[in-house]
Amino acid sequence: MTGPRDAATRKADTLRMWATPEIDVWVATASPEGEAHLVPLSLAWVEERFVVALQASARTARDLRANGRARLAVGPTRDVTMIDAVLEREVPVSEDAGLGVAYAAQADWDPRGSDGYVFLVLRPERVQAWREADEIAGRTVMRRRSWLV
Amino acid sequence: MTGPRDAATRKADTLRMWATPEIDVWVATASPEGEAHLVPLSLAWVEERFVVALQASARTARDLRANGRARLAVGPTRDVTMIDAVLEREVPVSEDAGLGVAYAAQADWDPRGSDGYVFLVLRPERVQAWREADEIAGRTVMRRRSWLV
Repeated sequence: MTGPRDAATRKADTLRMWATPEIDVWVATASPEGEAHLVPLSLAWVEERFVVALQASARTARDLRANGRARLAVGPTRDVTMIDAVLEREVPVSEDAGLGVAYAAQADWDPRGSDGYVFLVLRPERVQAWREADEIAGRTVMRRRSWLV
Repeated sequence: MTGPRDAATRKADTLRMWATPEIDVWVATASPEGEAHLVPLSLAWVEERFVVALQASARTARDLRANGRARLAVGPTRDVTMIDAVLEREVPVSEDAGLGVAYAAQADWDPRGSDGYVFLVLRPERVQAWREADEIAGRTVMRRRSWLV
């Protein structure tokens, strides 16, 4: 054991994790009827935003369009980053070339050319990072869209 | 590659995963205001129910009490089981000795004696299990509380 990580280390580990090739994100949303949904999706971290690609008609896309917010998790349960995020924009996968290149470079598949797929671009507002119980204190590393270190 | 697993193998793998010592569950809930929440919690699989222990005042407990439903995930994103579950009962951790023993035997901590903690007992209604894209077809292994194999 090396004890809990300091804030700067947690931020650095968090950013490294989000940029990992072929990493996934858990996306939790709520429907207008108040039902929770949860799916794993391939993640790209592009210009300080989370980018996922999915069918425009998928439940997660519909929930995000309706209420604009999601709760995300990246990493395993014992080395986790939890993110409260807002939907910043939505664009068909063929209509933003830069985003398509960036997404395909990190994710393990390329949605460009898949009919009906969109990119959802999510901005983190609050981020928490912890591994074990000794890191619960000090787990908030971003608040109101600002890194605390 | 061995190709997609058949239904019986998925069910067996799923039950084995849920009974793994020190495994966690992602719990997604929605608040009465329609906000999604998501947390990782230590899991016990007891008498065909998911059991988690948390503070009675925790957001996840409040959401479940209010609307009775959660969406759960157990396993990594590329070997996942997704569960739609309903809250069957809630009991203070000191008031159900059998549940306390069973929970502590599987989880990596023992909540008995922690003031204000409750067990939430969740019953699965629908379960999906898949690893990679080749397993999306046939991923539903339980529907309306019944295993399909």
